[in-house]
Amino acid sequence: MASTAPQSQPGSTADGVPGRVVGIDPGLGTTGYAVIEPAPRAASGLMGPPPLVVEAGVIRARRDGSLGVRLDAIYGGIIEVLEAFPPRALALEQVHSRVKHPRTAILMAHARGVIVLAAARRGVPVIGYAPSRIKKTLTGHGKAPKEQMQHAIRTALGLDRLPEPHDVADACAVALCHFQIDRNRGGLLP
Amino acid sequence: MASTAPQSQPGSTADGVPGRVVGIDPGLGTTGYAVIEPAPRAASGLMGPPPLVVEAGVIRARRDGSLGVRLDAIYGGIIEVLEAFPPRALALEQVHSRVKHPRTAILMAHARGVIVLAAARRGVPVIGYAPSRIKKTLTGHGKAPKEQMQHAIRTALGLDRLPEPHDVADACAVALCHFQIDRNRGGLLP
Repeated sequence: MASTAPQSQPGSTADGVPGRVVGIDPGLGTTGYAVIEPAPRAASGLMGPPPLVVEAGVIRARRDGSLGVRLDAIYGGIIEVLEAFPPRALALEQVHSRVKHPRTAILMAHARGVIVLAAARRGVPVIGYAPSRIKKTLTGHGKAPKEQMQHAIRTALGLDRLPEPHDVADACAVALCHFQIDRNRGGLLP
Repeated sequence: MASTAPQSQPGSTADGVPGRVVGIDPGLGTTGYAVIEPAPRAASGLMGPPPLVVEAGVIRARRDGSLGVRLDAIYGGIIEVLEAFPPRALALEQVHSRVKHPRTAILMAHARGVIVLAAARRGVPVIGYAPSRIKKTLTGHGKAPKEQMQHAIRTALGLDRLPEPHDVADACAVALCHFQIDRNRGGLLP
């Protein structure tokens, strides 16, 4: 885990904090994560405050590690995040139906598999969002260019700078997508 | 697990039975497995007896289950097999570099990921074999047709009939590939 690694705290993920979502950007080398939840109501203005990023960071797997060692690091890291910050849902990008680089996508899917497993074993529902859905939700445009997405992430979170590295920004994007869809539906999503 | 599910027995997988290998044919719906080990030396003739299939079967994931439920069933099933029959290695097909059906391969890779994770968490080395290597090892021909492979599996295991379903036969093939390569190298492979 990166230096932002959360400390494990007792707590059941089955009854995670209302509105809290963990967004994940899976990768065999670097997996980004972001924990987002509603800001306290007391601080709410007319528009309401932006949601809080209560934790974000990356899980780095050893470059020289075997596939098993890497997957074990990813699995362990996700379990740590889910235990330290019990969410109501885990959000990640859906598997693309059209793939430019099949081998890369297949390797990434190994990481995705152990992340979904970690959520299942902690009773956290997993929701996949198509990349176009994430873009449309954050910018209103399903084919928004990168800069527009970066602007939307900063604005939605009330941040001066984009979270870094990009794995964390991507994790924020998918978490924000779930957060906004959930809020618009009145919090009915898991 | 299928009705052939092994009973859990105490035992550390870190020091598995010499020469014992678990072959796996991963799938999100049905995952085949086969546990193969050397026959007792006492029964050995000039050629040596065929290796024993000490256990084989399938792990079936609920068709109506979420991805997480399926992966959890696969992970739990593999852990059960590794604990009941501690092997020296787990063998499966390598990820293909050229993929006909990327989406299918990506979904399968989720299952592959949790299988490799299960092995890593039980200290079992994982070895991937290219499909052509498996065919060449079993038949002498890297592009052997299906029928030739089926014949080779039956012959190598001294069986009258091919193991069923095909997921089990495929798991036997990759286990046999590792077994034969390992034996030819004098058992130096993990």
